[in-house]
Parts: sequence; C-alpha cells; structure tokens
Amino acid sequence: MITVNTIKDLRKVRQELSSPVGLVPTMGFLHEGHLSLVQKASEDCESVLVSIFVNPTQFGPNEDFNTYPRDIERDLEKLEQHGVSVVWMPEVDEMYPQGFQTWVEVKELSNYLEGKERPGHFKGVATVVTKLFTAVNPDKAYFGQKDAQQAVIIKRLVMDLNIPVDIVVCPIKREADGLAMSSRNVYLSTDQRQAATVLYRSLNEARQSFQAGVTDAEQLREILRETIESEPLAEIQYVSCANPATLEEKNGEVQLALLSLAVKFGSTRLIDNIIIG
Amino acid sequence: MITVNTIKDLRKVRQELSSPVGLVPTMGFLHEGHLSLVQKASEDCESVLVSIFVNPTQFGPNEDFNTYPRDIERDLEKLEQHGVSVVWMPEVDEMYPQGFQTWVEVKELSNYLEGKERPGHFKGVATVVTKLFTAVNPDKAYFGQKDAQQAVIIKRLVMDLNIPVDIVVCPIKREADGLAMSSRNVYLSTDQRQAATVLYRSLNEARQSFQAGVTDAEQLREILRETIESEPLAEIQYVSCANPATLEEKNGEVQLALLSLAVKFGSTRLIDNIIIG
Repeated sequence: MITVNTIKDLRKVRQELSSPVGLVPTMGFLHEGHLSLVQKASEDCESVLVSIFVNPTQFGPNEDFNTYPRDIERDLEKLEQHGVSVVWMPEVDEMYPQGFQTWVEVKELSNYLEGKERPGHFKGVATVVTKLFTAVNPDKAYFGQKDAQQAVIIKRLVMDLNIPVDIVVCPIKREADGLAMSSRNVYLSTDQRQAATVLYRSLNEARQSFQAGVTDAEQLREILRETIESEPLAEIQYVSCANPATLEEKNGEVQLALLSLAVKFGSTRLIDNIIIG
Repeated sequence: MITVNTIKDLRKVRQELSSPVGLVPTMGFLHEGHLSLVQKASEDCESVLVSIFVNPTQFGPNEDFNTYPRDIERDLEKLEQHGVSVVWMPEVDEMYPQGFQTWVEVKELSNYLEGKERPGHFKGVATVVTKLFTAVNPDKAYFGQKDAQQAVIIKRLVMDLNIPVDIVVCPIKREADGLAMSSRNVYLSTDQRQAATVLYRSLNEARQSFQAGVTDAEQLREILRETIESEPLAEIQYVSCANPATLEEKNGEVQLALLSLAVKFGSTRLIDNIIIG
C-alpha cells in the first residue's frame, strides 16, 4: 500500500494503477461503513484508492471541524488489511491553496434537508468531490447511502459536469442495535448512545405502518416525530418524507419515498434514512 | 476532419487521437483571431479539436444570444483548411440536459470589469469551460487575450479544480486599422465600424503616455476616457487600469497593468485591452 500527500505524487502513482480504478473518498476515522465501500470497490475494481481528507469547507462555522475525530494510524492499518492500493491524504493547503476561489454548486438539490440546516455544506462537498475526481480520475467512486442527499447530489454533479465516473452507492451499515455507523457516534455519552437507537426504531415504525397501509406523507412524518419524541434525550432537527430523486417534501399519498431525519443528542447531530416503497 | 455532436461520440473519437491533444473552444463565426489559436494549437499538439458552441448561459437576458452570428458551413471549411482533426458541435440540450443545476463559479475574479457589467456571464463561462474540459480531456487549451479577464479566470479555475490542462493564451488579432477582431464586429454599421478604431487608438495613447512617464493609474484611465469621448458614436461602459493578476483597479503609480475597456457603438458592445509595463 502506497501513501501519498501531494496531487503531483498522486498523479504519478495513479498512472501505474491497473484499471478500473475505484475511489473511496473518506474523512478518515474509518468504521465498518467505510470498509464496506472499500470491500465493494475491491470486488468491482483492479485497484482501490482511498482518500482521507477532513474537508474544512463542508463544515459550518459552528460545526465540529476542529474536533472531528481522527486516527490516521488505525485507518492505515485497516486499509492495508483490506488490500487498498493507494491512500491519498492531502493537506488543506494542497486542496485549497492561497487565492482559492472556485466553487461548484448543485443548486436546487442543495436547498432541502441537510442543505437547509447546514448552509454551504453541499457547496463544500460538491467542490471537494469535483477536486477528488479531477485529481484521481477514477473509473468508479463509492459513497454510502447514509448520506442520502449527498449521494443524489453527487450523481447529479457528475452528470451535469460530464465527469466520466460511475457513482456507486452502498447500503447503510448498522450496529447490532440498529444505530447507523458514523464517525460521530464516538461523541455520544453512554446514555445518548442508548437513546440514539430511537432513530432506526422510528424509521422502522414508519416503514411498518407504510406496509400496513399508512401511505399519507404527513402521517408518516408524524410517526417518525412521535417515536423520536418518546426519547427525552433526542432533539429533532427535521423529519422528512421526500421524493428520493428530487428531494422535494411529499404531500398526500406516497408510493416511493426517502424517509430521513436529523436529530441531536446533546451537541451531537446524527442522521439516518431508509427508502420505502 | 471528423465532426461530432454528442459527448458519447466525442469520447469515442477522442480515444483515437494522438497526444498531445489541443482544444480550441469557440462560439463559431470564426475569424483570424480564432484561426491563430488553431494555428498555435497545431504547432504545439499532435491533434487539434475545436468546439463550436454558442453557450446560452454566458449571455444575459438582454444580450445577443439569439442574434449571435452563426455560419457553420464556412467555419467547417476554414477548420478543414487548417488541418483540424475533430470539430465538436454539441446541442444546447446535450450540454444542459433537463434538470441541469450544477454551476462552477470563480468568485472574486468575476466581480470586476466584464463580470460587473454582465452579471452571471463568468458563471456561464466557468461552467461551460469546465464541461468542455471534462468532456474533451485535452492536454492544452487555447484562449485569446482579447477576453483578458476570461483568460485569468480560466487559469484560476483549472488551478483550483485540479484540471490537468495547460492554458495557452494567444495575442489579440487586429484588423489593418487596429480594431480587435471579434465575431460581433459584423453588427457595426459603416460609420460605427470607422468610429470603433478609437478603441485601439485610445489604448495606444495611454501606452505612449505611460512610456513617456505618465504612470498614475487615474491619469491613464483619463487618457482612455478622453480619447474615446472624442468619438461621438462611442458610449463608454468602463475604462480600467487594473492589476493583471487580481484584476483589482489600480490607484497611484503603475508599474504593470492591464488597460481594458468596454464601449458601445449603438447596441454593439466591444471590448479591447493591452498590457503595459
């Protein structure tokens, strides 16, 4: 396994990789969710390249950029065990050199859900992902369904900008009790960790009701809301029943929908989602 | 010479081209200025690919998108004579399919000069140029110094987005009487065409004064202004003496500057520039 930092070195090692090349973009502090992306990339591709970059431009001014968990040594060990060819770990100055001022925005899709709660987040995501793609030039790139809106936005981005990369979206990995894996789960206290199981429970409640014939969008949101509110440590940021392609909130009868939510436990903000229908 | 329309066909013929590949992006209605870019590309590269696309997103709502001059047959003849390998002429629907919503913006540099007068212009330019680059994947791309700000913005764009293409900027081509070549010159009446020679004359006046020791930025702008105002058919939009790298307007003593201007003759808007120092 080769590790590189600069884009120049990256391009050199990229040239030597057997095709197809799969890219797994990460912010490090890898868990089973990330490793399932690496696993899928290994199955599909001759070479797997993982980037580790905690991208400052996708964090808001009051978000957790400075405290975002990092453990490069353990990350590299895991990636080595998973047969990764190259790990690219650019410095912030390399990605955003002095005078940097070019931004990529996927407009309408960034107005909903996470984009509404976190202004500028998807501008940072779209810009850094474009840069990862132009620097690495992968054949395929792997993202998790956990960040459902991000996956929709990146698919639109590569279509709109003619970037020749296949976007592969992989299922959410969950802990034994259903909590979606996230690097941010380490922030939770024991009580909060226990309380956070309400998220997946609420999604399952809504799914079961849907399967039992409750197909009204507002009723489904209400089920999410009520279930989460039964947990005193949970503070809802939003619950949503939206069109999975356009991300517009649904009203009336639902045949296919993205149920998603953002909930805070203390200062820790978690997201989760499922598709129904 | 091969002509293609779709991006899919473009990628197929692109694969067969000998490297390095030079791209000359144009909006058609080719004049000697464009052909000098093609000539330079032929000298530098094994294959030359010319795109012809009148990009709607870089025109303002009251600008000349619908009347922009077109003559594809004559363009193709000229390009054939110049030994071009491939001409790519995408349809608007191909470049901006339904649901298109991803935009590239080079922020600060787009605030000055043309960007100030033409809101959204450089957003359209940056977006389409990014798309031309991702679709063609050229080794080098050729732009005219006539659009000085565009050249500065595109250099910043490829640096910021890690697009692996060398930007080559070629000198302005002028008519015998000094008027910078432009597809829009055909809009001019005989009187306006004669009057438009004042543009280059004003730039030369300022350059001569600079060489004779007039180095104050405001005095140089004043020389441009006075010379142009001596021509009754000319209506100044701006005259500028700016830092050629940052495009910020200069004050006080000048050692190196971009002198540039935009002037209307009737409804026809022309631009020109020189570098001094």
